[in-house]
Amino acid sequence: MVDGSHAIRSEEQPGDRTRLRVVRRRSESAPTLDAPRLSIEIGALDLELGGRLEAVTVAYRTWGRLNAAGDNAVLVLHALTGDSLAAGPGGWWEPLIGPGRALDTDHAFVICANILGGCQGTTGPASDDPLTGRPYGMRFPLITISDIVNTQRALVERLGVRKLVAIGGSIGGFQALEWATRHPELVSAVAPVAATGALDAQGVAMNEIGRRAIMADPDWRGGSYAAEGVFPSRGLAIARMVGMVTYHSKESMDLRFGRNPATRPVLYPSFGPTFDVEGYLHYHGDALTKRFDANSYLYLTRAMDLYDVGRDGGEVAWLSRIDAPVLLVGIRSDWLFPPTAIRALGDRLRRLGKDVEYHELDSPHGHDAFLKEWEPLTEVIGPFVSARGWGAIAQ
Amino acid sequence: MVDGSHAIRSEEQPGDRTRLRVVRRRSESAPTLDAPRLSIEIGALDLELGGRLEAVTVAYRTWGRLNAAGDNAVLVLHALTGDSLAAGPGGWWEPLIGPGRALDTDHAFVICANILGGCQGTTGPASDDPLTGRPYGMRFPLITISDIVNTQRALVERLGVRKLVAIGGSIGGFQALEWATRHPELVSAVAPVAATGALDAQGVAMNEIGRRAIMADPDWRGGSYAAEGVFPSRGLAIARMVGMVTYHSKESMDLRFGRNPATRPVLYPSFGPTFDVEGYLHYHGDALTKRFDANSYLYLTRAMDLYDVGRDGGEVAWLSRIDAPVLLVGIRSDWLFPPTAIRALGDRLRRLGKDVEYHELDSPHGHDAFLKEWEPLTEVIGPFVSARGWGAIAQ
Repeated sequence: MVDGSHAIRSEEQPGDRTRLRVVRRRSESAPTLDAPRLSIEIGALDLELGGRLEAVTVAYRTWGRLNAAGDNAVLVLHALTGDSLAAGPGGWWEPLIGPGRALDTDHAFVICANILGGCQGTTGPASDDPLTGRPYGMRFPLITISDIVNTQRALVERLGVRKLVAIGGSIGGFQALEWATRHPELVSAVAPVAATGALDAQGVAMNEIGRRAIMADPDWRGGSYAAEGVFPSRGLAIARMVGMVTYHSKESMDLRFGRNPATRPVLYPSFGPTFDVEGYLHYHGDALTKRFDANSYLYLTRAMDLYDVGRDGGEVAWLSRIDAPVLLVGIRSDWLFPPTAIRALGDRLRRLGKDVEYHELDSPHGHDAFLKEWEPLTEVIGPFVSARGWGAIAQ
Repeated sequence: MVDGSHAIRSEEQPGDRTRLRVVRRRSESAPTLDAPRLSIEIGALDLELGGRLEAVTVAYRTWGRLNAAGDNAVLVLHALTGDSLAAGPGGWWEPLIGPGRALDTDHAFVICANILGGCQGTTGPASDDPLTGRPYGMRFPLITISDIVNTQRALVERLGVRKLVAIGGSIGGFQALEWATRHPELVSAVAPVAATGALDAQGVAMNEIGRRAIMADPDWRGGSYAAEGVFPSRGLAIARMVGMVTYHSKESMDLRFGRNPATRPVLYPSFGPTFDVEGYLHYHGDALTKRFDANSYLYLTRAMDLYDVGRDGGEVAWLSRIDAPVLLVGIRSDWLFPPTAIRALGDRLRRLGKDVEYHELDSPHGHDAFLKEWEPLTEVIGPFVSARGWGAIAQ
């Protein structure tokens, strides 16, 4: 039992909605979704763009249990600066994962792995290069979403998974699409949220500004800051500030900040009256530097830029390979991956005869709504995943 | 004769559009709109936020001639990194200004001044502080759009102007609104283009990212780079890259760059396949560092953030003071100043009984369309300005 849950599930009273309700026995050990971070070594990996990593570690967490058939896995795919802590306290999709939730750990075996190139346990540019014993830095090879998914495949095969639901938002959605098109034999359903098949020019532009800010920081040192005992905090903070703007919408920023005066510290308070939105950006820029590696930011944004579901053969050929029901979720106010583009992807899939449903969240919160709008996400994702029809697993 | 024009204006043949056509006598000296940059000293200036400049210089250019009544002036108001070179070769509104054009120099006396805080001849942070004999740098006081307009007022009064049309795009539109609300007795008509009454939170956020990039550049030196013989080129280039994204629309970037591979040099070609939009951003980032002062960028973006037509009394009170016809121009794809917000400003003006017309340019080019869409701009601005009914001025 991985998740330590002691929930009893009982049906609602007649007349209530026919939803399951979770009743917790408080007298026993409190139910918890705390899951330790585990890791496995998957050996060498040849990369899509020609590089090779000699020894790859994949860090991951799981919740729930794999059934005997190995077909009740849900692979949750994190976004740019996310990590394997999807569920439980502090988890980035905490309200969506657990007993009775959209990703119901009484039925599903939920897995979340830190992505290749990241910095939360899976091999990335901050890892030691086995050839030198020192951090890769910019000697880390270029990686792609395909490579990220290949590490996930190695992981799930070790765990005994035979079929999985691939689900994630933003570049987690890229990974889901990559799973469904390049590994269709393992995918029972796929749900890219707030993602299309490729980033557009404006998205690439924003990523490049962030990279440029990191690389312009004198403490970046050509990527070798770790060896030199420094860190390009200012550059990474600016990159994050750019990112935060793309995750918000104009509407959400107006609602939340408007032209209100600063309520948090700003960097140069002496330089005139300041605005709330500035303090917010500084706060989030600074916060990322405490938990994220600057070179990972470079490599992962580049992987994001380079992703194109139709590369090497064209979109029709690749989308045709999808052999699973598809749930596409767009967000009304998403500026990074506009809902019109997601709906158009759904139309193209439908024309190829695919089983696809599209839902649009009517949220003002922009791209970040996939990390905020718990109720509509539950309503959309829950039925899609529970339609897989897995029975409950004895805990 | 300021503009050296030798145009003969003749009517089109019957049946043609009843537009005037310019025929140039090539045998004589070629008509030219070359105008020398002039400057005047306007003395000390007390500033809106409490500072004071002891000696202010205003650099400007003019085209056409002021009539005897002094009422045929058109004050063209430039945007963030613009300058007084509005017309003639290399002028940023060249196609709109000249004989027979929207701002017809056979009738109008066109004036464009470099703005206070800028770096093209008018006093700004790169100017020498008369108290120290060295560049102000960050000892330059905070300035506002109000202060900018006050320097323009001092200039036009020296030139003998009694009535003017105030017209400009982006923060040129802020200046136009400031003219119409704070100096209504001098304004015969006002045309803010691609501007609302205040920047929104997202716009402030983008400006702050640019400022942060400049201030994080070690060559900024707290603003004293000039004294130390360096220049924060990397920071200013990043700020410009951010700006370029806000001036484009998602649509214009898709049309122009899409996901095409780089055709211009990119900064780190070894870091993977690169995109055309990246080379474009690097080019424009680098180009600005060759013509613009980094501290001016800080001060002018801050003035942009702080502008609010309704400050100190509320929007209704200030808009009520407008005593001139108003032309508002929005751009369908403008993301920095969305057309919905401009249209709403027009509605509020109309409810106050003001004479206002709103036109929307159906352009994919985003905010920058006010520097690109010459034909629709001519069609909208030409009639509005010529409705002032000035006679032709003998050249």
